[in-house]
Amino acid sequence: MSGKEPDLAAISPDILSALQACVGTERVFTDAVSFEHYGRDWTRVHTPAPLAVVLPGSAGEVQALVRLALAHKLALVPSGGRTGLSAGAVAHNGEVVVALDRLDDITDFNPVDRTVRCGAGVITAQLQAFAADQGFFYPVDFASSGSSQIGGNISTNAGGIKVIRHGMTRDWVAGLKIVTGSGELLDLNRGLVKNNAGYDLRQLVIGAEGTLGIVVEATMRLDRPPKDLAVLVLGTPDMKAVMQVLETYQGAMDLQAFEFFSELALQKVVVHQGLQRPFATPAEFYALLEFEQHSDADMEQAMALFEHCVEQGWVVDGVVSQSVAQAQSLWRLREDISETISRWTPYKNDISTTIARVPEFLAEVEAVVSASYPEFEIVWFGHIGDGNVHLNVLKPDTLPMAEFQQRCGEVSRWVFEIVQRYEGSISAEHGVGLLKKDYLHYSRSELEIQMMRQIKKVFDPQGIMNPGKIFDL
Amino acid sequence: MSGKEPDLAAISPDILSALQACVGTERVFTDAVSFEHYGRDWTRVHTPAPLAVVLPGSAGEVQALVRLALAHKLALVPSGGRTGLSAGAVAHNGEVVVALDRLDDITDFNPVDRTVRCGAGVITAQLQAFAADQGFFYPVDFASSGSSQIGGNISTNAGGIKVIRHGMTRDWVAGLKIVTGSGELLDLNRGLVKNNAGYDLRQLVIGAEGTLGIVVEATMRLDRPPKDLAVLVLGTPDMKAVMQVLETYQGAMDLQAFEFFSELALQKVVVHQGLQRPFATPAEFYALLEFEQHSDADMEQAMALFEHCVEQGWVVDGVVSQSVAQAQSLWRLREDISETISRWTPYKNDISTTIARVPEFLAEVEAVVSASYPEFEIVWFGHIGDGNVHLNVLKPDTLPMAEFQQRCGEVSRWVFEIVQRYEGSISAEHGVGLLKKDYLHYSRSELEIQMMRQIKKVFDPQGIMNPGKIFDL
Repeated sequence: MSGKEPDLAAISPDILSALQACVGTERVFTDAVSFEHYGRDWTRVHTPAPLAVVLPGSAGEVQALVRLALAHKLALVPSGGRTGLSAGAVAHNGEVVVALDRLDDITDFNPVDRTVRCGAGVITAQLQAFAADQGFFYPVDFASSGSSQIGGNISTNAGGIKVIRHGMTRDWVAGLKIVTGSGELLDLNRGLVKNNAGYDLRQLVIGAEGTLGIVVEATMRLDRPPKDLAVLVLGTPDMKAVMQVLETYQGAMDLQAFEFFSELALQKVVVHQGLQRPFATPAEFYALLEFEQHSDADMEQAMALFEHCVEQGWVVDGVVSQSVAQAQSLWRLREDISETISRWTPYKNDISTTIARVPEFLAEVEAVVSASYPEFEIVWFGHIGDGNVHLNVLKPDTLPMAEFQQRCGEVSRWVFEIVQRYEGSISAEHGVGLLKKDYLHYSRSELEIQMMRQIKKVFDPQGIMNPGKIFDL
Repeated sequence: MSGKEPDLAAISPDILSALQACVGTERVFTDAVSFEHYGRDWTRVHTPAPLAVVLPGSAGEVQALVRLALAHKLALVPSGGRTGLSAGAVAHNGEVVVALDRLDDITDFNPVDRTVRCGAGVITAQLQAFAADQGFFYPVDFASSGSSQIGGNISTNAGGIKVIRHGMTRDWVAGLKIVTGSGELLDLNRGLVKNNAGYDLRQLVIGAEGTLGIVVEATMRLDRPPKDLAVLVLGTPDMKAVMQVLETYQGAMDLQAFEFFSELALQKVVVHQGLQRPFATPAEFYALLEFEQHSDADMEQAMALFEHCVEQGWVVDGVVSQSVAQAQSLWRLREDISETISRWTPYKNDISTTIARVPEFLAEVEAVVSASYPEFEIVWFGHIGDGNVHLNVLKPDTLPMAEFQQRCGEVSRWVFEIVQRYEGSISAEHGVGLLKKDYLHYSRSELEIQMMRQIKKVFDPQGIMNPGKIFDL
């Protein structure tokens, strides 16, 4: 069960048949293709090496698997859409991958409660489409919505592009069923809005990356659909101005989104996606704002604020969408960045501080990286309205991959030291997984980490649930 | 240290001087008046009997008190505004009351982050006023805002009248400092919007009623102020119609509040507060809706929905506020109920189900209580948009108090059995404290309660933090 080389012969006939007894013969896989498919997430750092992949069809089957794991000292890795970016769903050490794909029922839609029950394996985009069909809206949205699953969203407390208005996945979980590391089924909060009867264990499980148990079902809240969304892209001279724009707009309007990207990000996306620049005037940074038009008054308000920002020197130019199609193409300037820069196999980091400190924080990070590696291009974008920036260092074409990765290791440490000084988070929305666990102490005290270990023991006394993720026991 | 009779001589000179060394001689009280004042909350069931009352002036002093408590095996009861209704802040068993009144600084207001730092002892109304002075808004509001403190609001996850739009206190806590039962200071989340770096321990502490530690400081979020609030009071033929009205309005508008009260509640409040009925037509139940008027379109929308509800037979009559003053007097019809009925020393219960099930739930509770005690008047009101109803059984004038209380004990059990059958909460927003701990199993499984006990041990290994509240160890 080494972490280096998948040992396909490792599974014993006894365990294989016991797994088959839990979920059915056809639902246990031990072939290399399945291991490659189910054994890792969107990170490509670890070599997948599970013992087996199983696809349970019910909470009861998940409980049976946990009991089997306890009896045979097997580790379990819960597996959703595996779109994670922190190696939280990687099985590289002889674990049994428990893929929740088959738990994909959407039931018990209730228009008064505005809730719907989802199996852990429901894909985010399916829930979004279901909600739209009912005249409702599921607002948590991000690039991987087409593959990510609700169980995984909950386990990573997924965020995305509408957090400023709608919050994280945490805010949309009205009820949660999990199978603990003892094989017990917990039915937490059962869809209630108000429930102050003891500790809210549901909140602990959200964002725990499967280390406390396996999410098997959730009751998700829905919202009314947004009305006539308009998009504004504004060019700003510096990050401080971006903050002034944020404060100005947020003081007067309910924003649906407030994103940002740098001039370099814009240049890349325009060239490689064949898009048009939003306007001719170049700017250091761009802010993308989205808001609802309940009436003409909203657009008038947005335009008045725009003029104020221009007068103050916070905005050098801007454009507002005149149609749904134009709003969509303005969004592409922001949303296509990640895909565009993937050709440079960027070193990515997902970090946050309190919102007001972002400009100085970003300047410090940029200064440290540029001083040490002047040949590296740095692309900034992210959810600036939440204090969450994505740092992307592009690999120069001429630099060998191994050397780039080694240098990025150094970048990581420097960046996290700055994060620590700013009392920020080493993982704003992507979680910790395997990739960031060595850096957890930059955001959490030794005491907090120790308490997390003890809390894990309450849910998972034998340590079989996604071991080695977030922290080592 | 008996729970029955305050034993004012119980404190030893050694412990008294050790407490004085922690917080200063003038900040330790052992007199009967202080015990009466600091030893209990708004419940009047238990006789206050603390060992002493102390008023620390800093987090460091709270830590010193905890270390002292560990050394001398003293129990601590954290104490805020003591407006609780579940005896969560009662000291009836020789505990040291730690009153946080002196931690009342409001600092570090940040208009970009929209956050402000509050000592645990800041009174809710002070924070609301501070926010208003800065052009912002603190939206958690309830009858006891003038006395309740932020630390207590957090420890009980206080709700109130704006939950449908703004959520519970939980949603406004960006950072939290607590002193654990080991005397350690935890600094949780530090004001970040996005922070997926390990378990969110902050969420555990919110609503834990001081059993995990003492909240000493919080970073609270603020919102923009609401615009031109309008209030609508609608009469409905039954609870089912109330739900249709809720669904209709919520599908089209962002409601700020959706409250309800019964005809009997209205009659009492009109007579005893000298208010006018909202309209002549009597109705079984009344819904009070509040919404923002961003433009005339909002009022037009509200009126169109009103007409639709009348056409459908869901609404028999209604009135809309034409001024701020009129909005305020319509609100009094709902907000003055609690004070009005206090002369009948009502048996109160704060319960919830999922929203859509409220009508049948309420009918079942009413049927059980009326069948057994036809002479009791039942007054219903509450936060119906959150599935949260307040049941109030009024004491007949001729019935002796002791007999009424004894009969209400039986009512409790029947009500909680119905709550259990509906998978609801025995405490929607008031917490568990001493008053409801015997009923906790109606809402939480034995396994969950056992896990809560184990989690308490992680924060408070010696069990000195508000022992006996929520559950027994």
